[in-house]
Amino acid sequence: MNENSIERLSKYKSSLQKLKTLGFLKVFSDNLADALGIQSAQVRKDFSLFGISGKKRGGYNVEDLLTSINTILGKDRIENVIIVGCGNIGIALMNYRGFVREKIKIIAGFDIDPSRMAKVEKIPIYTMEKLKDFIHAESVKIAIIAVPDIAAQRVADLLISYGIKGILNFAPIKLKSQGEVVINNVDLIQEIEKVIYYANAMDDDNGKES
Amino acid sequence: MNENSIERLSKYKSSLQKLKTLGFLKVFSDNLADALGIQSAQVRKDFSLFGISGKKRGGYNVEDLLTSINTILGKDRIENVIIVGCGNIGIALMNYRGFVREKIKIIAGFDIDPSRMAKVEKIPIYTMEKLKDFIHAESVKIAIIAVPDIAAQRVADLLISYGIKGILNFAPIKLKSQGEVVINNVDLIQEIEKVIYYANAMDDDNGKES
Repeated sequence: MNENSIERLSKYKSSLQKLKTLGFLKVFSDNLADALGIQSAQVRKDFSLFGISGKKRGGYNVEDLLTSINTILGKDRIENVIIVGCGNIGIALMNYRGFVREKIKIIAGFDIDPSRMAKVEKIPIYTMEKLKDFIHAESVKIAIIAVPDIAAQRVADLLISYGIKGILNFAPIKLKSQGEVVINNVDLIQEIEKVIYYANAMDDDNGKES
Repeated sequence: MNENSIERLSKYKSSLQKLKTLGFLKVFSDNLADALGIQSAQVRKDFSLFGISGKKRGGYNVEDLLTSINTILGKDRIENVIIVGCGNIGIALMNYRGFVREKIKIIAGFDIDPSRMAKVEKIPIYTMEKLKDFIHAESVKIAIIAVPDIAAQRVADLLISYGIKGILNFAPIKLKSQGEVVINNVDLIQEIEKVIYYANAMDDDNGKES
């Protein structure tokens, strides 16, 4: 049950949802393998690892498979999430409609700057002073950090001390996991730098060839 | 020169910039290894792979190392980037100050909806009809896709046909690379799902133990 298999499970789910929308009832490991660009043996191995079984020649029932995967991913219930840092990225995530579909609900934002407090409809934004009480009152386990890098570690430490168990960090600094807390760092600068590097490398190669 | 080594190079750079800000002149492979949570042998292997050399016991000069890494990453010049899709995520990326520091310049946004066309200061937003001419006139090679998933593949095909060589995709759909074009998919839903899954898994484990 390593990180990659969870990532693939999430991708299977995404493909299955599309198949379901298109009216498909059955799916084969080959179909999912094609959608993800992997081998069908890998698909079967993943499913077997998570205790999902299909008929040998009959494939999998799309609906059943979705239910199983959602249960494994903890998506059979709504997950309440808070965002700390309500700048551009934070506000964009608050307004991101994709989360709703996946039963991820941003229930509040927190920021040190009160002037930011009227930008999002339906989601309240509070001052940092309310963070602790809110986390306890709502039993929040998951938080998104979208503060500047200089504040990120301090915010992470606070969140962890208040009982947060999982953090998605958008600040461009690698936060270190502590104890039994999961931290996933998404570094937007690094992601675009990778694209730039490889695009330039390809362009250079073409230059040499011609 | 695999993907991981480029990613590490980007992380070394980030650590080096912080060391530089703090006034450090020299750095050892052990320092960088600690910062990234890897072995120092890996650091030396990466540098050797990219032709960066240090003194055996004297470590590396921070400034020289930064210059070398920036040259490798193509960061010795400003990279012009466009964004297609000026919804919340697109606008947030346009306003993201971190890119400026890394010599990544968002020079224009494109959207089918003209009502979105006054949201960002300093960066013009055009209709999709102007996409082709703009890419050609400005010799743009890198684009960010932030449109809804249903439109993403069509936008990617367009961009590639207009000469774009690298795409960072934020639409929650895996776009397939074609020919000599690099596509990096950042799926925000998957990133938060990973956090939720592991946080819940940890919580379950604790429940069982107590």
